[in-house]
Amino acid sequence: MKTFFDCVPCFIRQALDALRMIEVSEEATERILRLVLLAAAEVEMDQSPPAMGRVIHRIIREETGSSDPYREIKARSTRRALDSVPVAEERIAAAPNPLRASIRFAIAGNVMDFALPSHWDGDRVERSLEAALSKPLDEEALAVLEQALAEASSILVLGDNAGEAVFDRLMIERFPPGKTTYAVKGSPVINDVVREDALAAGLDRVAEIVDNGSDAPGTILDICSPQFRRRFQDADLVIAKGQANYETLCGQSRPVWFLTQVKCPVIARDLKAEVGDWIVSPRQPEVELAEQG
Amino acid sequence: MKTFFDCVPCFIRQALDALRMIEVSEEATERILRLVLLAAAEVEMDQSPPAMGRVIHRIIREETGSSDPYREIKARSTRRALDSVPVAEERIAAAPNPLRASIRFAIAGNVMDFALPSHWDGDRVERSLEAALSKPLDEEALAVLEQALAEASSILVLGDNAGEAVFDRLMIERFPPGKTTYAVKGSPVINDVVREDALAAGLDRVAEIVDNGSDAPGTILDICSPQFRRRFQDADLVIAKGQANYETLCGQSRPVWFLTQVKCPVIARDLKAEVGDWIVSPRQPEVELAEQG
Repeated sequence: MKTFFDCVPCFIRQALDALRMIEVSEEATERILRLVLLAAAEVEMDQSPPAMGRVIHRIIREETGSSDPYREIKARSTRRALDSVPVAEERIAAAPNPLRASIRFAIAGNVMDFALPSHWDGDRVERSLEAALSKPLDEEALAVLEQALAEASSILVLGDNAGEAVFDRLMIERFPPGKTTYAVKGSPVINDVVREDALAAGLDRVAEIVDNGSDAPGTILDICSPQFRRRFQDADLVIAKGQANYETLCGQSRPVWFLTQVKCPVIARDLKAEVGDWIVSPRQPEVELAEQG
Repeated sequence: MKTFFDCVPCFIRQALDALRMIEVSEEATERILRLVLLAAAEVEMDQSPPAMGRVIHRIIREETGSSDPYREIKARSTRRALDSVPVAEERIAAAPNPLRASIRFAIAGNVMDFALPSHWDGDRVERSLEAALSKPLDEEALAVLEQALAEASSILVLGDNAGEAVFDRLMIERFPPGKTTYAVKGSPVINDVVREDALAAGLDRVAEIVDNGSDAPGTILDICSPQFRRRFQDADLVIAKGQANYETLCGQSRPVWFLTQVKCPVIARDLKAEVGDWIVSPRQPEVELAEQG
C-alpha cells in the first residue's frame, strides 16, 4: 500500500517515541527530529510507509552512532516472552485445536511492537496474551489456513518483532515438521527480529533461519536480497507477521497470509477492520482507497 | 511557554486537519505538507507553539491563495453560536449567579476550535454548551475573578475563536458596563476571531473592539502592534480566552486571567490538569517543565 497523508505526522511521532525509547539526550533528540522532518519533506507517497520508516531509523542509527539501538530492549522482550512460554504451551496443548491456539498466540505476541504509539508496557503484553484464545478472529479463515498448512510442501514465515518471535516459534512447532523457513531482517531496524533475536527465541530448533537482506521494516521486496526474493516466490505458503509486512506486501501478486494486530486507523480502513482487531487473512487484492480525505 | 518535542508531530497533524477543513485538493495538500515539514525542521523550540502555528498558516494562506480560508467556516460557527443564544441567555439569567454562569458559557464556547485534533462537530458543541453550568470549575478562582471584575477600572478580553466570540459577548454583557475592550487578531489565522467576526457576534454592542496587529494564534506580544501592547500593559484586568493565549502569555509578568478548555496533553501537564478540564486561572508563574521526557 502507498503512504497516506495521515502517515506523515505519525512518522514524526514514531521517531520521537523511538528516541525516547532508546533514551537519546534532549540535544540529540532535537537534532535528529529536525533531520527526520527534512527527510519526511521528501517522502515518496507512492512507496509503502515502511520505506519512510527505514529512512528514519537509518537517521537514528547514524546520529546515535549505534548500529542496533534497540538491542537491549529486544533482549528484554525476548526474556519477557520466554517467561510466558510455559503457560502459553500449556494452554496451547490443552486447547481443542492446538494448531489454531498456537496461531492465536503468535498474533497475541504481535503486541510487542515499539514502532507504534502507545508503546510496549507489561500490562499490554499481559492482556494480549490473556486474550489469545478468546479474541474474536476469522475462524473460517483460520480453518482455510490450517488446511493450507497441512498441504504445503514449504512454508515461509516472515517475522516481525523480537519477543513476538518466541510465540512464532510455538506456532511453528505445531506446523508439519521440517518444512518451515523463518525470515528475519538483514540488519537491525527498530525492534524487528534479526538472526541474533531469532536464535535467542529458539527458532533454529523449529525452522531454517534466513535473512531478507534489508534494513526496512516489513518486507520491501525490491530492496531484499535476490536469494530472499527467490525464497519468497518459491515458498508454497507464506505467512507474514505484523502490520509492516501487511503494508509492504498486500499488493503482491503471490498469495500471502497475514497474521497481525491492527494498530492504526489507516490500516484498519484498508482492512475494513477496527484498530485493536486481530487479523488472519489471505492476501487481499490491492485496495487503493479512493480518497485521502 | 516554549515548544515541546511533542508539539512537533502535532503541528504536522494540525496542518493536515486544516487542509482538509478548508478542502484543499490532494495535490496542493501534498505540496503544502512538504513545505510545512521543511518549516517545522526550522522550528524555534524556545518560542511558544503558536509561533509555529503562525508560520504554518501563513504557508497555507500563501499556497492556497486565500487570505482567509476559514472565512465561511467562521461564519458558520458564528451562526451556530447565535442559534444557541436564546437558550444560553435564559440559563444565564436563571442561574443563582448570572455573571459566573456567563463566564462558564464563555469557556463552553471555547469548544469551537479548529486548530485541534478532533475538529468541531455539532455534537461536541452541543455537549459543551450542555455542560456549561455543571462542569467542575475552580469556584474559588471564579469568586476571585468576580471580585476583580467588580473592582476593575478597565477590562481587556483577548478573544480566541469565531463563534466562541458570541459567548464572550454574553459574558461581557454581565461585566460592569462601559469598561471592556475586546481584542481580535490583526489579520486572519485559522478560525481566530477578526474584527468582521466580532461584529457578526455583536461584540461592538458591549465592548470597544481593537485588533492586536498580528496574524499569530494566541497573543505573541513581540509581534503585536505597539498600540495593542500598550493596551495590554495598561488594562486593569486582562482575560485571555483559549489555549493559544495561555501558551503565549503564561510567562508574562503582568497578571492575566485564563479561561480555556484544556485540549492537549502538553498544556494539561503545564496546568497540572487533565485534557478536557475547564480552566479559570489567574496567571501562573512560568513553569518550565524540568524534562521533555
